[in-house]
Amino acid sequence: MITLASDFGTPYPAAMKGVILQESDARLVDVAHDFPRQDVRTAAFWLREVLPYFPPAVHLVVVDPGVGTDRAAVVVRAGDHALVGPDNGVLLPAARRLASEDGDIEVFEIDLGDPASSTFHGRDVFAPAAALVHEAGIESVETREEFSSVAEWVDLTFPEPTEEDGRAVGEILVVDGFGNAITNVPGRVLDGHYGGTVGVNGESAPVEPTYAAVETGQRLVTVGSHGSVELAVNRGRGEDAFGIGVGDAVSLDLD
Amino acid sequence: MITLASDFGTPYPAAMKGVILQESDARLVDVAHDFPRQDVRTAAFWLREVLPYFPPAVHLVVVDPGVGTDRAAVVVRAGDHALVGPDNGVLLPAARRLASEDGDIEVFEIDLGDPASSTFHGRDVFAPAAALVHEAGIESVETREEFSSVAEWVDLTFPEPTEEDGRAVGEILVVDGFGNAITNVPGRVLDGHYGGTVGVNGESAPVEPTYAAVETGQRLVTVGSHGSVELAVNRGRGEDAFGIGVGDAVSLDLD
Amino acid sequence: MITLASDFGTPYPAAMKGVILQESDARLVDVAHDFPRQDVRTAAFWLREVLPYFPPAVHLVVVDPGVGTDRAAVVVRAGDHALVGPDNGVLLPAARRLASEDGDIEVFEIDLGDPASSTFHGRDVFAPAAALVHEAGIESVETREEFSSVAEWVDLTFPEPTEEDGRAVGEILVVDGFGNAITNVPGRVLDGHYGGTVGVNGESAPVEPTYAAVETGQRLVTVGSHGSVELAVNRGRGEDAFGIGVGDAVSLDLD
Repeated sequence: MITLASDFGTPYPAAMKGVILQESDARLVDVAHDFPRQDVRTAAFWLREVLPYFPPAVHLVVVDPGVGTDRAAVVVRAGDHALVGPDNGVLLPAARRLASEDGDIEVFEIDLGDPASSTFHGRDVFAPAAALVHEAGIESVETREEFSSVAEWVDLTFPEPTEEDGRAVGEILVVDGFGNAITNVPGRVLDGHYGGTVGVNGESAPVEPTYAAVETGQRLVTVGSHGSVELAVNRGRGEDAFGIGVGDAVSLDLD
Repeated sequence: MITLASDFGTPYPAAMKGVILQESDARLVDVAHDFPRQDVRTAAFWLREVLPYFPPAVHLVVVDPGVGTDRAAVVVRAGDHALVGPDNGVLLPAARRLASEDGDIEVFEIDLGDPASSTFHGRDVFAPAAALVHEAGIESVETREEFSSVAEWVDLTFPEPTEEDGRAVGEILVVDGFGNAITNVPGRVLDGHYGGTVGVNGESAPVEPTYAAVETGQRLVTVGSHGSVELAVNRGRGEDAFGIGVGDAVSLDLD
Repeated sequence: MITLASDFGTPYPAAMKGVILQESDARLVDVAHDFPRQDVRTAAFWLREVLPYFPPAVHLVVVDPGVGTDRAAVVVRAGDHALVGPDNGVLLPAARRLASEDGDIEVFEIDLGDPASSTFHGRDVFAPAAALVHEAGIESVETREEFSSVAEWVDLTFPEPTEEDGRAVGEILVVDGFGNAITNVPGRVLDGHYGGTVGVNGESAPVEPTYAAVETGQRLVTVGSHGSVELAVNRGRGEDAFGIGVGDAVSLDLD
């Protein structure tokens, strides 16, 4: 199985699929091709949240503002999974989550020779590399000459929230398609507050386990499916109602 | 085969696919993941029109504004097909169409124990249930303890048009991506009028079998691929040209 | 393998897939379903660029503003590939590219009897025809009664650029989702200019092999993955920065 994710829209992902299918009968599953253009951080967040639900697979990821520069192409081995993409950090949060049982990841630089283009390595480097890893097996990265173990790579981490004296302070990591503003604050801080309220940047808001627990159009604070605190509106957009966006600080008063 | 439909956009459907693929090698086919957010009625319309073209399958549908409330999760058995989703009516029009040969549907409540989240039952309830129905076989809903036959469920029906004295009165059920305004009036009312005109809410419009029978930008009344009367514009948007939208009344004068 | 491309958005492509899957176990791969509505020329461009990356396949294409008129439905045989769609030229540029080894294409008209609708031949004509060609084999178009060889068809060609006295003159064929304005001028005209500048409609712009070679927000002229000259902006939209759109003339001064 090979999953595919990019910021390409259409039809560029189809060219990647064609290239893979020249070499492999792998099942192909799209994760998303509408990640915000060249936004490595948002893609990294979603991959971390979605890829762990898959059985062992090769995950092809192309969000690559540095295409054609000397940034490396890499395979990250994480447990029974392999991630293939640019060395810009986009693969790392998902890789650590996928490897969580033993915690170890290994990174290999890819060298397939000179690519046909400088502007579409998704088609000319990453897709052939993903097909090769799939066909040769994930272990093959240890021995095949196309792959070289490296000791350093570009990392990407999300900020850690702080918790102190009944206050949790974090930030909005992403806003999803429903307008839910997803924070980095762990959902457990809401334990004991369901049915009550918390302060959100100084204003009180109800805490509920599910959107429809409040009236249509009303704000709520809840735990999203990612396990972190989410600012939402029942049948509406939390980002608008809370006046908040990606990167903004969120201070939760829990007393 | 498992089809998938939702109002999730991306990348949430990929999490559902991952969950299914942990348990099943089923072919996965996307119906749509861009149904209007939390619009049960529009999704129900499109599923009714599209699912009957599929061979026997399990159809996973998640348009679920009541997620996390006490609305049930259900499997609807309809002929050789099974539909899995929330008990909010979204499955019913398609189920009746799929069962049309003998007309019978059966509804079973799903109990897979407490889901991991209150906000993403697509991933935590419906996807595992669809995989289970697929792997165990559609008949298994009769006997497996995860499924309980129920006598009552939430239904959803579309309004019936009226026909009297050369006038058919209905309403716009949906507008498709081309801007075609699709009514609930059966296309046969146009028989004998092709090449002529009918009155649409008091204004005359040509009746033609196909869009390109009128000039670019001109209005027409035709029969859409769903078999019902459609208000359209050749290479344009019928909803704009007729000044009409979902839920609006349409009166067709056929004399 | 059957690829699918259209301007349908969703959920109409799912009806085509259901129809195919009634008759065939073919792997289905989406190329794009968000081609600009009824824009035969843009679809033809993208198909020419993407389909050659696929292994031998049946390619189902429905961008069909003349649906229901007397325009023919055709299969184009090109090398080991077959393309199925309306006789409006949309298949031809891709077919010539796919046949490039021997250069020959053959066109066959499709007759499956009266279709169920006049407005959705994707579902009622092209999908069944694609399934038939896939199941019977591409050679079957020579002998089966549903297909008749024809000597004339609607063609579609893109304009040829001119090169003279250090100036190349062409036009913008399409703008991709990143805002890159793709010309018909072959990329080789930039050889020897990398790291320098060229004139674009009278204004100087840097020539670089890759987007990130210039600062964020800066314009550049480069060779896109299609092998032709592209007007771009690093992490921005070339169409805006160059003030240029589809069909506009582009004059490159190369001295």
